[in-house]
Amino acid sequence: MITMVIVGTGNVAQQLFTAIAKKKEINIIQVIGRDENKLIPFNNCPNTVTNYEYILESDVYIIAVNDDSIGAVSQHFKNKRGLVVHTSGSMPLSVLPPSVRRGVFYPLQTISKERKTDFDVVPICIEAEKSEDYKVLRKLANAISDQVQIMTSDQRKLVHLAAVFVNNFTNHIYHIGNEICNEAGVPFTILNQLILETAKKATHTPVLNAQTGPAIRNDKLTMQQHLELLDTKDYKDIYSVISNSIQKTHGNKL
Amino acid sequence: MITMVIVGTGNVAQQLFTAIAKKKEINIIQVIGRDENKLIPFNNCPNTVTNYEYILESDVYIIAVNDDSIGAVSQHFKNKRGLVVHTSGSMPLSVLPPSVRRGVFYPLQTISKERKTDFDVVPICIEAEKSEDYKVLRKLANAISDQVQIMTSDQRKLVHLAAVFVNNFTNHIYHIGNEICNEAGVPFTILNQLILETAKKATHTPVLNAQTGPAIRNDKLTMQQHLELLDTKDYKDIYSVISNSIQKTHGNKL
Repeated sequence: MITMVIVGTGNVAQQLFTAIAKKKEINIIQVIGRDENKLIPFNNCPNTVTNYEYILESDVYIIAVNDDSIGAVSQHFKNKRGLVVHTSGSMPLSVLPPSVRRGVFYPLQTISKERKTDFDVVPICIEAEKSEDYKVLRKLANAISDQVQIMTSDQRKLVHLAAVFVNNFTNHIYHIGNEICNEAGVPFTILNQLILETAKKATHTPVLNAQTGPAIRNDKLTMQQHLELLDTKDYKDIYSVISNSIQKTHGNKL
Repeated sequence: MITMVIVGTGNVAQQLFTAIAKKKEINIIQVIGRDENKLIPFNNCPNTVTNYEYILESDVYIIAVNDDSIGAVSQHFKNKRGLVVHTSGSMPLSVLPPSVRRGVFYPLQTISKERKTDFDVVPICIEAEKSEDYKVLRKLANAISDQVQIMTSDQRKLVHLAAVFVNNFTNHIYHIGNEICNEAGVPFTILNQLILETAKKATHTPVLNAQTGPAIRNDKLTMQQHLELLDTKDYKDIYSVISNSIQKTHGNKL
């Protein structure tokens, strides 16, 4: 049995709390948050506090707060014997105090309140400094996920950047598609199948081979017409830089 | 029973041929292609020809050739009584000769040889000039797909542009994610779940609400670090223009 304290009350904290609460191997003994109201979702934890004076002794402390706050918040744990980990993709392990056993527990998933995260399929990227700490993190990660990956801070930073592309940027590209459908007076749902098929393909076949469209065909007339159809400079810019990059990637210089 | 002639031997022609061959309501009586070798996949059609002199009389002629060739190829059908349709998203109906009953039969899907297209779930966008021609196209489309949408040439052009964003551009974004993972020495498959989840979300919830990431949080430090991590000017440009567009969309000016 591993005892755990969760620090933070945001989306990541809530999702971890829900996923871990069901697991026998881990016992969440405390949740710490600055704002009493935000601790309400954690009410079935026996101990919720707003004050760092009352931190319980625990095997693991999971700091699930904003990237900018990890450094300051983790100072409250610098005399603890337990393993102190944060959940950020872009922050290095070294943001935590060197005096503690420190690590990272980064769930590689877009986490939002609207959609429940099924952690079984979310890769958990772990980092630690000692082999016994890796053992604890691996046990923790295995309890909630089927995919656990050891990663250095430098690797994690790159993977987080890749995730920004395939998640955040893709979502904005969908938004542009949605706007264009609105302009056409055609429901965006007409693209559902195409969106799903494109994503599925990327998980099966090399994405380089899956590239299609006017840019890779160097179909200048269609590209010119598309630029004229786009209303805003931002969308035209996005169209141009991505088309240009597709052509360079596939060897057709403009 | 509708009789059909397919013109062209590329991916769209092949996929249509396979999907339609199984349907009792439609009888493919001829396939026309310039190159005899490229007609081999259509060998179980009773009549394959390379010469437009031998076009059979048919209810429908489906011209599934490159966008640039539709105008010229369709000239061979200008004295036919059958319905002449093309399969292009970006070309208007008017590219076909005004002397014929003309229409469009556009399957809204990325079609490639590598992955078999399951037409059941592919929306077919149809356009015609007369109500009786719409009836024929609707019957044809319903035979192979559950989703049929009537669309003008202007609407189709916009929907095709939207498809370029959500399919072609998304695929290139995946490619960039893949390259970054390669640099990190981490398998791209670690992003599979994130890619699928992001796509699924877009088919369920408004994409505008699903936006997350450093740009919408205006997390300047992370964005600066990401730009430094990117190797090429193209990728930096893509990062900047999309982040900028996310911020404008969500009201956080840079």
